[in-house]
Amino acid sequence: MTEINFKKKISTNAVLEAKDNLVITSEFVSRITLSLDSDYNDTSKNMLLSLHPADLADLIETLNEDYRKKIVSNLGDSFPEETLPSMSVPILTNVLELISISLLTSLLSKLDTDDIIYVLEICTDELRKNILAKMSKDAQKLIRQALNYNEESAGRLMQTDYVSIPINWNIGQVIDYLRESKRIPDEFYALFAVDSRHIPVGTVPLHRAMRTKRNIKISDIMTKDPKIIKVNSSQEDVAFLFDQYELTSAPVVDLRDRLIGMITIDDVVDIIREQADEDILKLGGVKGEGDFYLDAYKTARNRFSWLAINLITAILASISIAFFSATIKELVSLAILMPIVASMGGNAGTQTLTVAVRAMATRELTSSNALRVFGKEILVGSYNGLIFAIIIGFITGIWFSDYLLGLIIALAMFFNLIIAGTFGAAIPMILSHFRIDPAVSATVLLTTITDILGFILFLGLAEFLLIN
Amino acid sequence: MTEINFKKKISTNAVLEAKDNLVITSEFVSRITLSLDSDYNDTSKNMLLSLHPADLADLIETLNEDYRKKIVSNLGDSFPEETLPSMSVPILTNVLELISISLLTSLLSKLDTDDIIYVLEICTDELRKNILAKMSKDAQKLIRQALNYNEESAGRLMQTDYVSIPINWNIGQVIDYLRESKRIPDEFYALFAVDSRHIPVGTVPLHRAMRTKRNIKISDIMTKDPKIIKVNSSQEDVAFLFDQYELTSAPVVDLRDRLIGMITIDDVVDIIREQADEDILKLGGVKGEGDFYLDAYKTARNRFSWLAINLITAILASISIAFFSATIKELVSLAILMPIVASMGGNAGTQTLTVAVRAMATRELTSSNALRVFGKEILVGSYNGLIFAIIIGFITGIWFSDYLLGLIIALAMFFNLIIAGTFGAAIPMILSHFRIDPAVSATVLLTTITDILGFILFLGLAEFLLIN
Repeated sequence: MTEINFKKKISTNAVLEAKDNLVITSEFVSRITLSLDSDYNDTSKNMLLSLHPADLADLIETLNEDYRKKIVSNLGDSFPEETLPSMSVPILTNVLELISISLLTSLLSKLDTDDIIYVLEICTDELRKNILAKMSKDAQKLIRQALNYNEESAGRLMQTDYVSIPINWNIGQVIDYLRESKRIPDEFYALFAVDSRHIPVGTVPLHRAMRTKRNIKISDIMTKDPKIIKVNSSQEDVAFLFDQYELTSAPVVDLRDRLIGMITIDDVVDIIREQADEDILKLGGVKGEGDFYLDAYKTARNRFSWLAINLITAILASISIAFFSATIKELVSLAILMPIVASMGGNAGTQTLTVAVRAMATRELTSSNALRVFGKEILVGSYNGLIFAIIIGFITGIWFSDYLLGLIIALAMFFNLIIAGTFGAAIPMILSHFRIDPAVSATVLLTTITDILGFILFLGLAEFLLIN
Repeated sequence: MTEINFKKKISTNAVLEAKDNLVITSEFVSRITLSLDSDYNDTSKNMLLSLHPADLADLIETLNEDYRKKIVSNLGDSFPEETLPSMSVPILTNVLELISISLLTSLLSKLDTDDIIYVLEICTDELRKNILAKMSKDAQKLIRQALNYNEESAGRLMQTDYVSIPINWNIGQVIDYLRESKRIPDEFYALFAVDSRHIPVGTVPLHRAMRTKRNIKISDIMTKDPKIIKVNSSQEDVAFLFDQYELTSAPVVDLRDRLIGMITIDDVVDIIREQADEDILKLGGVKGEGDFYLDAYKTARNRFSWLAINLITAILASISIAFFSATIKELVSLAILMPIVASMGGNAGTQTLTVAVRAMATRELTSSNALRVFGKEILVGSYNGLIFAIIIGFITGIWFSDYLLGLIIALAMFFNLIIAGTFGAAIPMILSHFRIDPAVSATVLLTTITDILGFILFLGLAEFLLIN
């Protein structure tokens, strides 16, 4: 019995310490690498096969290419097919280079369509052609169809195996069919009732089917308003639907409303996590999920463009400072203090921006409350602007024994925090209006504004009030 | 038939525009508020009851307190109980004030334990006592027990209704039991096989049970190594388990390994989303998920502490600049250029930090690969440091016709980006080692370091090379 015993209460991210939760501990990694290095092939194979396919994927992700090669050759035909779709894209790309085409084809043939697609999407065009050529005609047709759907659409996410039953059947017929039929998916949570045109008209969750007597008709127990997904829906819409209505599976229909596939909750969990991951990384200036698995050189290239944009905006801020060179030369305390106003604006704006971007992703911020949120953020900026203006005004006044300088930085702080709230809310809304992903470009736009206006406000006010 | 037809391909966050996906459109909001303002009580009630409970929750979240009151009084006893746990905490707190205790008690009695707990956690102690007193003895006992478990533990997440069956039964007995028994949860995806001490020893997914003939024994078809959750496990561990092994439900056991509850995938989807939400918000300097729903004053107070910490670090950076006042007075171009080095360090460090924090949350970064990741990030910092050093060196040389100044800023940039990579990786690892949530405090620690060292490196080098 696999007992998952987590002894300690750990915080979200205290994972480096929480070794007892992980199957792939550093001890396990040492043991398996030692065994792979020796000639104990059977020992290694037993250790590897004792792992859950998802844990084996984690192990492969942790090891370097040499050991990945050893694992692939050690396992040979016993390589668990479920391990393939459990790996992240950069590692899977690497593993695909180590596996023979014939093994890969036989592994893929054991997977659901959505998992096959995940692997084939990564293959080179040539490899994909070779693999497809070796598959059955039926499988080829289904996969080619799936690859024709938009990336990030429901069509790519769905599996083509599902259980559909005529609406006029009774439970007894369904149970007999399930017991005898060969072409049934490995896992399913509901039966899809279809009419004569193969259009889904109801769903029956399995727990309801199991509790119903044999002579009861499907049409009497089915959920009559099922949530149905169009094949061209975006994966984000699918995720929202599953999350909002707590679905475990949903039928997918083509453009003529006929049932062609099924999406299950496990695929959607991946989407929800990936969506959030992407938003976090984008807000942090990192594109794509693969960053963690790229080598140093590729990672540096991956992050270069974001830093390049930041360099340009930093230079713009410097140019705005340059206009006040004479004033700074006269009063060096301005140079000492000016980063404070800019930095506080950036931080306050980032708070607003983060809440707005996230609320859009979870569909809490919509056009129906956008104006109210915008007004609120300006108010928040005013409140905190006022408080921090007073604080920094006094500190500056005492530090430099110059209360006029204190008044100047207080005014600059007040207005910059209002600007931060205004643009922190407005930028993601405007970007999303023009269908630009706010998580990517909002931060840099915002800090450019809060930096430049922060410097200009503070130095400009100083020039006006102190020097003239 | 509810047809969910998403006509346009939309990007993750382009939600303000994607009106056709939402049930609660601004048009719907206008119609329902108009109807609530008039005396068309039946029309309003029909509109409200036509909504899915989760959509009704969204509507209530969108409206202000006046309309919330109107909705509660309009629906009366027909208020859908499932709407309560679908609301976010600040809104639910408000709604609880508008509902009578007797209605609330009767609504709660129709919910699963985990949902009851979600609502009761929010109630004042007095309200909770009053509600509990009105419940059945059995319900009281179960709920008191659940409230005794740690917040954020599996015990709070589980429901106490589940389907357990003796291991020696056959499928026929199970089906008969399911058809006749009254105390069966509303939804379930697997049967838990228990031994004579009520210890779970296997699970049977419903789809497998449905495909099995009546005379087959449970012990012959059950999954023998089920993933079992201890009642005191953290919710993050539960989420990891469901995600890693693609579970739809799992048995929960007490400290003596006896089956006491069940956790289902819908609860875990919430946890996964909330975890990611929290990480995003914390990295953006906002604590708690409720921020979006607080009023401006409370929001400002909520965000104050983060800004206060940032003010302190900004002042520390200013103090480090102050040491070089004389140098700046001599060469004002230093004041113009100094924010560039600090800002690039902050951004490069944030990239590293974001990747590290996220990789810890998804358990990709563990003690077994920490050292390799750390080394990689220093290398990434060196690569990009070198490139941006060259770029900013040339720009500065040309801008100020001073190639020594160009060399100085190039050196400062190079070293600050290496520092950024080093600390961007080290800070979250160190914090997590001491069980401090890295998402909260890592950013401020990092930017303090990159700001202060950025200024000191650049101004110090300038003082040393230019002035002496």
